Amino acid sequence: MSRELLSTSVLALLRFQTILLTQPMLLTALTFFSPPTLSSPCNLALPCCVLGLYAPKNTMNIMLTNVLDAATGGLFYYLFGFAFAFGSPSNGFIGRQFFGLESFPSPSFDYGYFLYQWAFAIAAAGITSGSIAERTQFASYLIYSSFLTGFVYPIVSHWFWSADGWASAGRADGNLLFGSGVIDFAGSGVVHMVGGIAGLWGALIEGPRMGRFDHEGKSMPLRGHSGTLVVLGTFLLWFGWYGFNPGSFLNILRVYGDAGSYYGQWSAIGRTAVTTTLAGSSAALTTLFGKRMLAGHWNVTDVCNGLLGGFAAITSGCSVVDPWAAIVCGFVAAWVLIGCNKLAEKFHYDDPLEAAQLHGGCGAWGIIFTALFAKETYVNEIYSGRPGRPYGLLMGGGGRLLSAHIVQILVITGWVSVTMGTLFWILHKFKLLRISADEEMAGMDLTSHGGLAYAYYDEHDDAMQEKSFMMTRVDPQVV
Amino acid sequence: MSRELLSTSVLALLRFQTILLTQPMLLTALTFFSPPTLSSPCNLALPCCVLGLYAPKNTMNIMLTNVLDAATGGLFYYLFGFAFAFGSPSNGFIGRQFFGLESFPSPSFDYGYFLYQWAFAIAAAGITSGSIAERTQFASYLIYSSFLTGFVYPIVSHWFWSADGWASAGRADGNLLFGSGVIDFAGSGVVHMVGGIAGLWGALIEGPRMGRFDHEGKSMPLRGHSGTLVVLGTFLLWFGWYGFNPGSFLNILRVYGDAGSYYGQWSAIGRTAVTTTLAGSSAALTTLFGKRMLAGHWNVTDVCNGLLGGFAAITSGCSVVDPWAAIVCGFVAAWVLIGCNKLAEKFHYDDPLEAAQLHGGCGAWGIIFTALFAKETYVNEIYSGRPGRPYGLLMGGGGRLLSAHIVQILVITGWVSVTMGTLFWILHKFKLLRISADEEMAGMDLTSHGGLAYAYYDEHDDAMQEKSFMMTRVDPQVV
Amino acid sequence: MSRELLSTSVLALLRFQTILLTQPMLLTALTFFSPPTLSSPCNLALPCCVLGLYAPKNTMNIMLTNVLDAATGGLFYYLFGFAFAFGSPSNGFIGRQFFGLESFPSPSFDYGYFLYQWAFAIAAAGITSGSIAERTQFASYLIYSSFLTGFVYPIVSHWFWSADGWASAGRADGNLLFGSGVIDFAGSGVVHMVGGIAGLWGALIEGPRMGRFDHEGKSMPLRGHSGTLVVLGTFLLWFGWYGFNPGSFLNILRVYGDAGSYYGQWSAIGRTAVTTTLAGSSAALTTLFGKRMLAGHWNVTDVCNGLLGGFAAITSGCSVVDPWAAIVCGFVAAWVLIGCNKLAEKFHYDDPLEAAQLHGGCGAWGIIFTALFAKETYVNEIYSGRPGRPYGLLMGGGGRLLSAHIVQILVITGWVSVTMGTLFWILHKFKLLRISADEEMAGMDLTSHGGLAYAYYDEHDDAMQEKSFMMTRVDPQVV
Repeated sequence: MSRELLSTSVLALLRFQTILLTQPMLLTALTFFSPPTLSSPCNLALPCCVLGLYAPKNTMNIMLTNVLDAATGGLFYYLFGFAFAFGSPSNGFIGRQFFGLESFPSPSFDYGYFLYQWAFAIAAAGITSGSIAERTQFASYLIYSSFLTGFVYPIVSHWFWSADGWASAGRADGNLLFGSGVIDFAGSGVVHMVGGIAGLWGALIEGPRMGRFDHEGKSMPLRGHSGTLVVLGTFLLWFGWYGFNPGSFLNILRVYGDAGSYYGQWSAIGRTAVTTTLAGSSAALTTLFGKRMLAGHWNVTDVCNGLLGGFAAITSGCSVVDPWAAIVCGFVAAWVLIGCNKLAEKFHYDDPLEAAQLHGGCGAWGIIFTALFAKETYVNEIYSGRPGRPYGLLMGGGGRLLSAHIVQILVITGWVSVTMGTLFWILHKFKLLRISADEEMAGMDLTSHGGLAYAYYDEHDDAMQEKSFMMTRVDPQVV
Repeated sequence: MSRELLSTSVLALLRFQTILLTQPMLLTALTFFSPPTLSSPCNLALPCCVLGLYAPKNTMNIMLTNVLDAATGGLFYYLFGFAFAFGSPSNGFIGRQFFGLESFPSPSFDYGYFLYQWAFAIAAAGITSGSIAERTQFASYLIYSSFLTGFVYPIVSHWFWSADGWASAGRADGNLLFGSGVIDFAGSGVVHMVGGIAGLWGALIEGPRMGRFDHEGKSMPLRGHSGTLVVLGTFLLWFGWYGFNPGSFLNILRVYGDAGSYYGQWSAIGRTAVTTTLAGSSAALTTLFGKRMLAGHWNVTDVCNGLLGGFAAITSGCSVVDPWAAIVCGFVAAWVLIGCNKLAEKFHYDDPLEAAQLHGGCGAWGIIFTALFAKETYVNEIYSGRPGRPYGLLMGGGGRLLSAHIVQILVITGWVSVTMGTLFWILHKFKLLRISADEEMAGMDLTSHGGLAYAYYDEHDDAMQEKSFMMTRVDPQVV
Repeated sequence: MSRELLSTSVLALLRFQTILLTQPMLLTALTFFSPPTLSSPCNLALPCCVLGLYAPKNTMNIMLTNVLDAATGGLFYYLFGFAFAFGSPSNGFIGRQFFGLESFPSPSFDYGYFLYQWAFAIAAAGITSGSIAERTQFASYLIYSSFLTGFVYPIVSHWFWSADGWASAGRADGNLLFGSGVIDFAGSGVVHMVGGIAGLWGALIEGPRMGRFDHEGKSMPLRGHSGTLVVLGTFLLWFGWYGFNPGSFLNILRVYGDAGSYYGQWSAIGRTAVTTTLAGSSAALTTLFGKRMLAGHWNVTDVCNGLLGGFAAITSGCSVVDPWAAIVCGFVAAWVLIGCNKLAEKFHYDDPLEAAQLHGGCGAWGIIFTALFAKETYVNEIYSGRPGRPYGLLMGGGGRLLSAHIVQILVITGWVSVTMGTLFWILHKFKLLRISADEEMAGMDLTSHGGLAYAYYDEHDDAMQEKSFMMTRVDPQVV
């Protein structure tokens, strides 16, 4: 067996394990990571709180959403998505091979690669589901997530990640955008901005949850679900991020230049994990002290979201920046998130998981960050074979990388707005998007899914089991 | 170091990591995966629900059960189980070496293999514990799980998985059952049917939980615990399944035939993960729409169980079928599960986790499925060294594989019924199986374990801490 | 590519994956693993229990603590800790290189090693946080965890684990302590005793939680949070332990002596996982039956803590003892934990997670255990290159290893007491350590963090959002 093959196999191992690690974990985590996920319009249901108890009514709906996001995404990415993204040979805009994994595996792609990319596709769909949580009809979830994982997301990943993509940094024909291409290593743009902007349009078109803002437009607290689950979810996502960022290397057994045997791709993988960790840590601590100054108290949800914002930002440049730069990245990401949340509140934008702010906002910052701080050595080592590539502006590498990255932000924003914005608007016009006010008040779990996630219920218990369930029998005072 | 050794080491890596990943995860997951796990006979305890609150009284008992299943299973599989299963040289029916890991490691087996097999043994015992949950004495758990992991399960795995087993597809002496042997790659039969049928007998002999069926035999809803935990558990099991199915390959660095360097065992491992994913996705979506049609509402528990049913079914043939066939597998598995649940309800069979239906029913379907859809190329690649093996009936491979697989179903059903059925019957006769009606009503946690899993309690709090705990002081109205 | 390099790369893989697996998992797990973590002084708040409901008020505080422990630890270990621990060349007492990962990677260290060591540092800080939970000011957490991960812990790991450490078993200059050095393979002393003794001093200086002992000094039950989460956390820690113990090997592709190709470091890794598993299993079952005899009932928390005590004890010798010895190790560890808990109760020492007893007590037993049961073959294989090393006293290896290990216990106890004891005392003197009695009664979540972890709240909901929050408005009867 040749060395090359062996190296490829070992790589397969790493990537495959990464799948094992991250894919379902990420899904689980997305389910839990922000408490507003699970909140409900409880100021409308105050009577039920008289006993000092709050029933998180929408929990089961969101849970079901996540299971089915994964299942639907799995099917559609298998049928269409992967073909649009990586079907090669193709033009720079869309792939045209491997539908339903036909002629697979090939010399260029193996199943492990498919699984890995699938995890990214599901992640993008999961981000969007956070923005529209708690007020969206179930059918809409199935429709948007099929469309996103089967078409919208794959096109973007084709542009920036495939060997044929017009803006890819590793484009096979060498005709790079601004002589550089876009360095979006693990998807601050391809994954996070796509998911975040799709969510932005969904949430904008639906409007805020009932009771999120009072009649004067003042923000009202919608209390969340369980701080314990928020932190558990955050740690699971943290865990998953080690799979996505360091796991994005395509091979492991590669020596760099003449630096000697101790220095190669394996070292870059380790550095990627270090930068990821430091960006998150720095963002979490910045959020902690920042919110303390601004709001006067500590808050675990803010800190968790800050941490995740740091991760979303470093995802783009994690492999090509120094550890100290990652600390800068996280520091700024925390303030970007705080600023986006201020903006959202001002414009009465309601995003239960702050998904647009966190993944969209911090993701965009991450793309800029990479264009500022990418280090010459690392860029040339990781995107090798073409010496003298542009690198970070602040590292003396000129503005070409920055130009490419600004194009990336614009193009992703435009493409996702046109496709997903239109889709959500159509769903809205056909009355498929938002649940009825009655349902929203009573909690979606009862009406659509025939059961409560939590075991709180009233004396009229049998009512829930009846097929022809009458809404009027659900009395908020008692539930 | 020779290539072969290196290959073995890399394999050790994969398998070992698999252990790291799946073993405790699976246990955790089994704990949570179905809400009825945690339900209680609450229609008998309606007074406690007056406040709109439901205390899941049996939680701690089940939790404790799972920790101890793992601990007990670990000990007994170490002492006896592995020896009965893989002690080689041996006859076709039972192994006779390696008791307490004596003369271990040997040229044929290393510790990693032991750990991996241990995870399967514990999984089988965990499946059974689901069927008998919420009404079984604690001593019974210790007894049945020792017997199952120490004797019943190891014998089955010897027959189908060891190099000496009379029905193994990889039998060393080449004398294959029907010229084919049984292809039960990751244990639809060896693990899932064994656990499911053991559970069937346990649950049959105990009878349904109090309040599960009313006096006219009509099924009553026993409300579950937490939809959040159900989904979390399902994702953890999903995660674990990637360890069990793709992780069942014995080595990774193997090139297949003349197909060139890009195609070998590593590719088959990836395909196995793809088929696993697709079977689960397909089963989940089928369940979703199926139950919508049949019952008129969506239900997260049904969808989760459907997903897991798809996994249990594909476990047998995951490595030897094409991705499209996996979709068929999941589709049918969903209907098998729905059918089994209808049957269970009709015959007043009460299985809190649907373990017999899910693992027994869908497992049996998976065995048949493999015999129908196994692809010639894959069968010969993975079970190599003996060209011209029989393969799937519908793929043109004749009926010999199907014959072997029907024998497998019959033999497993018979062996587990005789051994575990007898054991549960003896426990029943000696009054060791079922808890008393008083205990069942008051919740087992209070009486057997001296504490509540959840922090709901009454004013007479101190009473719970007393050693000479008097049942009469537990007042359902207040708890 | 040379074989050696390849071996190193494969090793990098294993270790790196270990990081992926354990680091955030461990943190998550530490959050949950013992129910008293989440208990509150509820006998002081009995009125709120009138409705049969118990609000775990301190949850969010502890959650936030854990996120920030990880973030703070990540930053300080990056800046100082790793340099003090492994900065080489150095003297035997403290390292002096690699501050902020300068001149990194080097021929001796790569990023993966840094990440791996970081996980250990965070683990030590997490252990301490358990001892002081539920009555400690938030600032204190930030201060002690910076100091512990940035200075105290790194010095200890330098002594016992670095190639320059004065007590290291692998000391580069060959001048070993008692001709042996300390065999603390995965840190029963370096990690667990350090964390446990730091916690002991913190908890001693703070004194017990309000209501933990009544006015006559009788122990009072502080009810925990959720048995489900206890078991989930225990399984996650179990999972993490496979990363720490087997993951502590520095390479994998090494053949041992003339034993043939099937026997080498990979086999030792497997054996390490087996000993770890058996020690935990044995400790769990011993605790089960032991507590049954002593206290008259089963208790899931005790069993979980027993299991973890077994793991903490085997951590030191996991790679150099036989599986049967691991069973002895777990058996004794269970009784050590029971004994330490009796002592703690007698002396009115209140440790919400039993961290000092479990990690300190069982950790110390583990160090002694290794000195008694280390097997000659294994010691020489794993700490190779210096034939004729001392080994376990009871295995006929003489008392030199035991002498070294007794020195380890004394030195760790002394160093941590002097440094961390002083720190906690200073914090106490400056009134930075313990929260006020009012805060403790009302629950820390409300007053410090501006929100409740759980969605239980009163009608005066808006009050919680006000910046200038007035304590008097929090009425325990209503919350």
